[in-house]
Amino acid sequence: MPLKEKIEAANGEAVRRLLAADPVLVDVAPASEAVPGMRDRLILHSGPPVDWQRMCGAQRGAAIGMAVFEGWAKDAAEAERLLASGEVGFEPNHHHGTVGPMAGTITSNMWVFVVENRAFGNKARCRQVESFQQFGDWSPKALEALAKWRDSWGPSLRAVVRALGGIPLKPLIVKALQMGDELHNRVVASSSLFANVVAPELAKAGLPTGRLLDALYYTGNHPFLFLALSMAAAKSVTDPARGIPYSTVVTAMARNGTEFGIQVSGLDGEWFTAPSPRVEGLYQPGFSASDAGLDMGDSAITECAGWGGFVIGGAPGILSFVGGTPEQALGWSRDMRSICAGRSPDYLLPALGFEGTAVGIDVRKVVQTGILPVIDTAIAHREPGHPIIGAGITRPPMECFTRALKRFAERYRE
Amino acid sequence: MPLKEKIEAANGEAVRRLLAADPVLVDVAPASEAVPGMRDRLILHSGPPVDWQRMCGAQRGAAIGMAVFEGWAKDAAEAERLLASGEVGFEPNHHHGTVGPMAGTITSNMWVFVVENRAFGNKARCRQVESFQQFGDWSPKALEALAKWRDSWGPSLRAVVRALGGIPLKPLIVKALQMGDELHNRVVASSSLFANVVAPELAKAGLPTGRLLDALYYTGNHPFLFLALSMAAAKSVTDPARGIPYSTVVTAMARNGTEFGIQVSGLDGEWFTAPSPRVEGLYQPGFSASDAGLDMGDSAITECAGWGGFVIGGAPGILSFVGGTPEQALGWSRDMRSICAGRSPDYLLPALGFEGTAVGIDVRKVVQTGILPVIDTAIAHREPGHPIIGAGITRPPMECFTRALKRFAERYRE
Repeated sequence: MPLKEKIEAANGEAVRRLLAADPVLVDVAPASEAVPGMRDRLILHSGPPVDWQRMCGAQRGAAIGMAVFEGWAKDAAEAERLLASGEVGFEPNHHHGTVGPMAGTITSNMWVFVVENRAFGNKARCRQVESFQQFGDWSPKALEALAKWRDSWGPSLRAVVRALGGIPLKPLIVKALQMGDELHNRVVASSSLFANVVAPELAKAGLPTGRLLDALYYTGNHPFLFLALSMAAAKSVTDPARGIPYSTVVTAMARNGTEFGIQVSGLDGEWFTAPSPRVEGLYQPGFSASDAGLDMGDSAITECAGWGGFVIGGAPGILSFVGGTPEQALGWSRDMRSICAGRSPDYLLPALGFEGTAVGIDVRKVVQTGILPVIDTAIAHREPGHPIIGAGITRPPMECFTRALKRFAERYRE
Repeated sequence: MPLKEKIEAANGEAVRRLLAADPVLVDVAPASEAVPGMRDRLILHSGPPVDWQRMCGAQRGAAIGMAVFEGWAKDAAEAERLLASGEVGFEPNHHHGTVGPMAGTITSNMWVFVVENRAFGNKARCRQVESFQQFGDWSPKALEALAKWRDSWGPSLRAVVRALGGIPLKPLIVKALQMGDELHNRVVASSSLFANVVAPELAKAGLPTGRLLDALYYTGNHPFLFLALSMAAAKSVTDPARGIPYSTVVTAMARNGTEFGIQVSGLDGEWFTAPSPRVEGLYQPGFSASDAGLDMGDSAITECAGWGGFVIGGAPGILSFVGGTPEQALGWSRDMRSICAGRSPDYLLPALGFEGTAVGIDVRKVVQTGILPVIDTAIAHREPGHPIIGAGITRPPMECFTRALKRFAERYRE
C-alpha cells in the first residue's frame, strides 16, 4: 500500500475512534487516589515538560499556591525556595492521563473529575476550574477556594456521581453546542445543564443542609464549571486515538506558558514544541497586553476533540470576552474543516446549518494549507501572583506542525 | 405640532416605557387569587374575544379539559354540553391583565406566574406551559399534569419566589439571548438558568422530600418552563405602553385559532382582527399540514416585547423545530428593525454583532414596508383532543394592520 493510503487509513481509524467516544463522568476524587503515578512532592502542570527555571510566571505562581495548599511551605517565600531547590518534582498532566486548565497544577490533595470513555474503557481526569490559583494567584482567597473544593464541593459531587452510576457527558455537550457554548471558554450552558442534573441528586444524597446548599450554589452559579468536564471528556476522547501507526492526527495540544507542544497519533510519546505564542484578546480593567503571559494550559485538548475554536462560530456570545465578530467566528469554524480528517455526526452546529463539527486535526493539512488551529483561551499575567487578566484568540506556532511532519517523514520513510 | 411629529413623540414615549421595564417574578398563585376579575364558571382564553360556536377545535378541546379539571363536568361529553349551553363564560386573557400559551385556558384553580414590572408597578400573569392540555388534549395524562402543577410544583415555586422577595427576570433574559434562546419557542437556556436560581431556594424552603424532589425534577427538566415567564414578562413590559394618544405602537398580538387580533397603544381597548393564518412548519411523526389548526395563542406577546421571531437570528438551534436556515433567521431579525420604533440597549444579540434587539412594532412601518412581524410558534391540531403536533413560522394578516391604521386615521384626523 502506498504511504499516502496507509496514512489515510490510519487517520480514518483515528477519526473513527474520536467519533465513537462516549465520555461519562464516573467519579470526583483526590488526585492521590485517581491520578495514576500521583505522589507526594509532585506537581503536575499543563503543557509539555518544563522545569522551575524555564517555567513562566503564572505557572510558578500556581506552583507556589500548591506548595502552600499542600502544607509543604508556610508561605510564598518558603514555597519559592522549596520549588527552586529541586525537592519537588514537576511533570506534565498529559503524562498521567490528566489535564488541567491554565497553569494546570495538580497535587495529591487536589480533587479531580474522572471521566471514563465507555466506548474504549480508558479514563481521563481534570482538576476543577477557578479564576484565581490556576492563573498564578496564591492569595488566601485563592487557596480557600481550593480547600472548599477539596472539603465540600468535591466530596458532595462525588456522592452524586457515584449514586447516579456516572453522568453521561455527550448528551450535555450535544445540547450545549446548540446553546452557544463552544466548550472551552464559554461553558455557561453546559454548566447550567450539569447543575440541573445534579441538583435533585444532591438533595437525595443526605448531605448536611450547609453542605447541600454550598453544593447547589456552587454548581448553579459557576459559569466555568463544565470546562473541567469538557477538558476531561476531550482527553478521554483523544487518548484512544493515540499510537496508531501512520496516523498524522493530533492527539494533544498543550502549553505551559513557555512552550506550545503538540502530540501526534503515529508518533506517540513525542512532543513537538516551539515557544508559546501571544494571545490576541480583551483585558480586564487595569490590564493590557503588556501584562500578558504567553499561551498556557492543557485546555486546547478541547480543540483536539473538535470543540473550542473549532465551533466558535456557534458561540457568538463569547466574542465580547475574547474579541472578534460573528462573521469572523463563523469563518474560523469553516476554516477548521480544511485541516480536519473528519466530521462528527453527533455534535452539530446550528449556526452552520446543523453540519457536523470538524474533528481530528491532520498535521499534513495544517502544513499544506497554512491554516493553523484556532484556539480561544484565557490570559494569565506574565508575573506570578495574579488571577485571570483577560481572554482571546491564539494559534499554535507552525513550527510544531512542521517539526512533527519532518519527524513523521523520518519515522515512516519507506 | 404636525400629526407626524405627535406620532413620533408618542411612539418615542411608548418605546421609552418598553425599554424601562423591569419584569420581576413576584408570585405563583391560583388564578382565583391572582387574576383580576377571575370567577367561577369562567374560562379565560388566548386571543381576541370568541364564543363557543366560533371557537377552533384545539381551544374547544382545551376548554373541555378545564371543565373536567374544575369538576364542572365528569367527562368530555358532559363538558361539551355544558360549554355549548352558554352557562360558562369565555373572556380573553388580555382583558384580565393575563396571557396564556396556545389555547391559553385559565380557570379559578389554574395556578399562574405573577410578574410585576417594577419600573411601573403593573402586574401581569401567565399560566404554566405544557405540551398537552393547552393544545386541546383532555386525556387523564393531560389533566394529571395540571393537577400536579396546582398541588405540588406551583405551591413549591410560590414558597421560593416569596422567600426570595421576587426573582428579577431581566438578567435571565439578557443571558438567555446570548445562549440561543429566542424566548418564545426556544427557552431551554432561560429555563435551565431559572432552575439554577430556584434549586438552592427549594432546598431551603423546608418542603417534604417528595415535594422537593418533584420540584427539582420539574424545574430542571422542563424545556418550556420559562415560556410562561417570558410571556408574563412581555405582558408586563407592554402594558405600560398602552393608551398613549397618537402612538402607533402595537401593544398586543394574540390569536384564538379563529382570529388574529392586534391592539395599538393610541387605540387602546380595540382589537383589529382578521382570520388566523396558517403556520408553515415542521410536524411531529404521524402529523402533517392537513391536521393543523390555524395560528393560536397569546404567546405573540413575546414578539411585541422584541423577542421570539424578532431575535430568532440568534437562536439557530430552534430551526430544527420550526424550519428555516440560519441565514433566513438572521434576515428575519434584521428585517424586524425596519418595522420597529426602537432598539433595546440591554437585550443584545451576539449573532448580530451585539446590536440591540428591535422593539416596538410600528403599525405605520408595517403597512409602509409591507414587512409583517415574524412569529415562531407551536402548532395545534385542528380537531379537539390532541397534544402538540408541530411548530413553525407565521406572520399576522396584513389586514389587522391596515384596519388599525384606518381606525387611527379616523380617530386622530386633524
